Amino acid sequence: MIARDRQSRLERSRRWALAHAKVARKRIGRWPRYVPLIDVAREYRRDDLPHDLIAGCVLGVVTVPQAIAYAFLAGLPAQAGLYACLLPMVLYAVFGSSRQLVVGPVAVAALMVAAALGEHAPAYSDRYAAIATILCLEVGILLWLLRAFQMGGIVNLLSHPVISGFINAAAVVIIVSQLAAFTGVVPAGGGSAVEQATRLWQALPEADLKAVGIGFASLVVIWIVRHYGRFVGSWVGDSPIRRAGPMAVVLLATICVAVFGIDVATVGHVPAGLPTLALPPLELAMWWDLAPNAALIALVAYVESYSVGKTLASRRQRRINSNQELIALGAANVGAALTGAYPVAGSFSRSGVNFAAGARTPVSTLVCAVVVAVTVAWLTPLFRHLPHAALAAIVIVSVFGLFEFHAIRGHWKFYRADVFTHLITFVGVLLAGVEAGLLLGVVIAVMLFVRRSSQPHIAELGRLGDTPHFRNVDRYDVQTWRHVKVLRVDESFYFANANKIESRLSRIVERQPRLEHMVLVCSAVNFIDTSGLEMLERLNFRLGRFNVRLHLCEVKGPVRDQLDTIGVTDWLSGKVYQTTDDALFELARAS
Amino acid sequence: MIARDRQSRLERSRRWALAHAKVARKRIGRWPRYVPLIDVAREYRRDDLPHDLIAGCVLGVVTVPQAIAYAFLAGLPAQAGLYACLLPMVLYAVFGSSRQLVVGPVAVAALMVAAALGEHAPAYSDRYAAIATILCLEVGILLWLLRAFQMGGIVNLLSHPVISGFINAAAVVIIVSQLAAFTGVVPAGGGSAVEQATRLWQALPEADLKAVGIGFASLVVIWIVRHYGRFVGSWVGDSPIRRAGPMAVVLLATICVAVFGIDVATVGHVPAGLPTLALPPLELAMWWDLAPNAALIALVAYVESYSVGKTLASRRQRRINSNQELIALGAANVGAALTGAYPVAGSFSRSGVNFAAGARTPVSTLVCAVVVAVTVAWLTPLFRHLPHAALAAIVIVSVFGLFEFHAIRGHWKFYRADVFTHLITFVGVLLAGVEAGLLLGVVIAVMLFVRRSSQPHIAELGRLGDTPHFRNVDRYDVQTWRHVKVLRVDESFYFANANKIESRLSRIVERQPRLEHMVLVCSAVNFIDTSGLEMLERLNFRLGRFNVRLHLCEVKGPVRDQLDTIGVTDWLSGKVYQTTDDALFELARAS
Repeated sequence: MIARDRQSRLERSRRWALAHAKVARKRIGRWPRYVPLIDVAREYRRDDLPHDLIAGCVLGVVTVPQAIAYAFLAGLPAQAGLYACLLPMVLYAVFGSSRQLVVGPVAVAALMVAAALGEHAPAYSDRYAAIATILCLEVGILLWLLRAFQMGGIVNLLSHPVISGFINAAAVVIIVSQLAAFTGVVPAGGGSAVEQATRLWQALPEADLKAVGIGFASLVVIWIVRHYGRFVGSWVGDSPIRRAGPMAVVLLATICVAVFGIDVATVGHVPAGLPTLALPPLELAMWWDLAPNAALIALVAYVESYSVGKTLASRRQRRINSNQELIALGAANVGAALTGAYPVAGSFSRSGVNFAAGARTPVSTLVCAVVVAVTVAWLTPLFRHLPHAALAAIVIVSVFGLFEFHAIRGHWKFYRADVFTHLITFVGVLLAGVEAGLLLGVVIAVMLFVRRSSQPHIAELGRLGDTPHFRNVDRYDVQTWRHVKVLRVDESFYFANANKIESRLSRIVERQPRLEHMVLVCSAVNFIDTSGLEMLERLNFRLGRFNVRLHLCEVKGPVRDQLDTIGVTDWLSGKVYQTTDDALFELARAS
Repeated sequence: MIARDRQSRLERSRRWALAHAKVARKRIGRWPRYVPLIDVAREYRRDDLPHDLIAGCVLGVVTVPQAIAYAFLAGLPAQAGLYACLLPMVLYAVFGSSRQLVVGPVAVAALMVAAALGEHAPAYSDRYAAIATILCLEVGILLWLLRAFQMGGIVNLLSHPVISGFINAAAVVIIVSQLAAFTGVVPAGGGSAVEQATRLWQALPEADLKAVGIGFASLVVIWIVRHYGRFVGSWVGDSPIRRAGPMAVVLLATICVAVFGIDVATVGHVPAGLPTLALPPLELAMWWDLAPNAALIALVAYVESYSVGKTLASRRQRRINSNQELIALGAANVGAALTGAYPVAGSFSRSGVNFAAGARTPVSTLVCAVVVAVTVAWLTPLFRHLPHAALAAIVIVSVFGLFEFHAIRGHWKFYRADVFTHLITFVGVLLAGVEAGLLLGVVIAVMLFVRRSSQPHIAELGRLGDTPHFRNVDRYDVQTWRHVKVLRVDESFYFANANKIESRLSRIVERQPRLEHMVLVCSAVNFIDTSGLEMLERLNFRLGRFNVRLHLCEVKGPVRDQLDTIGVTDWLSGKVYQTTDDALFELARAS
């Protein structure tokens, strides 16, 4: 009964997906395809609204403190963070294909902006805001270009081990940088995370004990709300009230500082009012200098947003469209550029809050944007007495959620190279900085992949009993022949492995004086490049010298087409057989 | 009769190779393995000597003018080129595993040295000789390190398209740079080949007509010797006298300038006497700055030497040992460093001359070294009146032999990406310089490879008649099933293609409402990385939502071992079958 019920539910969900796809294709015009909010509006039901309203308000409460804290992490004023939750959030709601993803300021992008500011601000007389908006616009344009040239696939180069190594290290870097604010000592300045940590350690005796106290008190408040909040907030889904800790910290810390007149570093004056629209300055030299930074921020922002969006979508049996995500995230960043914010991306933690608070459509993020707008318009005087140490505590707690080390152990057993990639990226970011470390990780990942395929597994095969199947002689009890060698090369023939394959196959022939035929099983050869082709020609020639014929079998369609263009049958000393069975049927008898 | 004769000859040659390998393994000690000249000496027969003597003298006549010309190409004095033919040549003869390869100054390495000098000489007060010897020593040490860490395979990254694109462009760059000497105008200075050509064009009105005359006369002499020399020199093998053109040019031009007192730029004073041994200066900053240049020179030198050596060895049914070549070429470069020369490599043209002149052993190169030593010791005053224009003509003619464009057309049909790689490297070297262009080529080659494997070919398979074989439904008339899809993904599952594979397979499922089983044929899956594994887990979960089971079959041993470590059978909704036939036997009936 239960099984049938489950099956019918699945059947329904599949039918829904099919129907949805058909409807989407039939709709007049292409607008809904590019503006998913139109679809949302058409399908919107009255009972979705309370869910979205509650989720949006919860999200707003979580968003405001994070937005201010991340702005300081990026080295920008508080309003830059708040502005990043207005137009960008609205634009993503309009264009994004994910229904729960929350776009806005995120820790990793803030860190990368901080690195870019540290690198370029001295050369441009500390015009932080100008640099941040140019970065935004470039990120947006680059994402649109990736869409226009169908190059979205390039983000796959940021493999999971690279990204997780990068984010783990970024979390460490962020915590180190926030410890400076936490302890009230002078910001640790530039340099790698290790240098910053050293300087922080040396400056520790000068720590402002009031700031440290506020910081620790903030951590305790967040911990209490997270652990006991579930009893309070059980009326809205999965207790999103547990995420309200940061807002509680903001309120409590502000009140304490204002009432008791504690003398610590605070946020100070934040201009009230909504941002005005303005284009970033059009200085070509600046644009050119910032382009590499923008490219890396764009890739990281997209990878993070896409993976968060995909995870959330799959929980509701939806799919998100990678091309549409490029458009939407590009639009959000362009929006950030026009309103004086800084680069935005999909937030892992806030999207989770949104999802857990029961958001059904992007309307919840629109509600959140209204909450932020109200804050910006009327509530900014409240932040005057908000201490930096409390914000640092908020960042440190949110960043702890980014750590992802548990996967490494499983990876070590399964595929060791990925663990190396992870660790090298991690260490690289800590020692060489955010951008150099990330690039190092990508290069290492590609190099390890090329290295892997440059040393192919070559198996000698034999016939399994009387069957037409052939298996590795080392793993199975199979029939072999003295005058025929059947070899399976488990890799495409291409430049990085052509020499290796040639020398290994030649050595096999030289050690077998009675050999007459070598059969290459090409079931794993997915393509052959010109180096691979030259290798085959040389191998054919060399085997000919030893009076051994070279045969190919199980050649796949695309490779067969390639070989036909150069007339392989004209120069190959042997034949091209359909199957290994065919080859052995002829060759094993022939002797 | 002829066939049997050929067969017995082949049988003999194979027996020879086997016996040789056995003997080499049995010999006492490992010395002959590391010092192939010991083997040469043991096997040396009296009738080898005249062949080696003649070849050595012919080689000497070809080498001397080239050595001087390439030294000027590198921006070094004439003696640096001559010294590069003494100790380096002897050391390669001792340690090299190729019997005909001639190591010494080559055009491409000279060009790369010129680039390094142009880049670094201004910072080190124009100490050209010091820079050149440090480069040598670094090249030698890097080659030894590659041997020590078993990293020789890294040179495979310099694929054939990259190397041929690079060498074609290098030939153009060299010709442009020599045209300056050819026309007697001021050397064109730094910048890319395009800039040099532009400046040369603008300076053309000031050309020294006497130099141009000598240059053209030299070209004519070389052409005449090459085309009519065969009638003269037929007594030594394949008319190596045809290669004596450069020596004739040197003699004729020197005599003309000396006798008629023509006022053109000449080589001038070359110090007489053999080089003294000296270590390059131990300045760490300089070593560090030059290391990247040295690394590129080392890779290019090794790739060229190895490929020339391999070609020559295969003509005599020998093999050369890639590890031993690293040692030998490293030793040659260290020798060059100690004697004030510049980086050396295996010369394509002179190795060909040596081979064609009938050299049987490395003794011929020892003879050549003696010829060069005699020249350096007593004949340097003869070069006083040797005009630069004649040397430029010699370089231009030898460099024409490097061009290799004919392969492109065949490659276009066979594997288009290689043509792109070739052209991008070619254009990159011309526009961005020798080193940047080479690196660009390597990066492009790797990127195109990753791109290729990131968009895998996915074939739907069906049963071929009553056989146990399965083929692509688009290419064969095969039996298919409504409730079972058999899909073959022609690539390993790894980070660059995991998302792509997942989305394509999911789409197939969503379009087939009656589907119950998806069978992934893994015959082309050579490994799975952690991104690939996560993809399989997600796919398994997603198919489960649609009530479709995921099965694997034809999983290879190494991949099976990987999957066993994480207990794939515990979470996979379907089974892992040995063969596609097994899978379909069970699944096709089950419905």
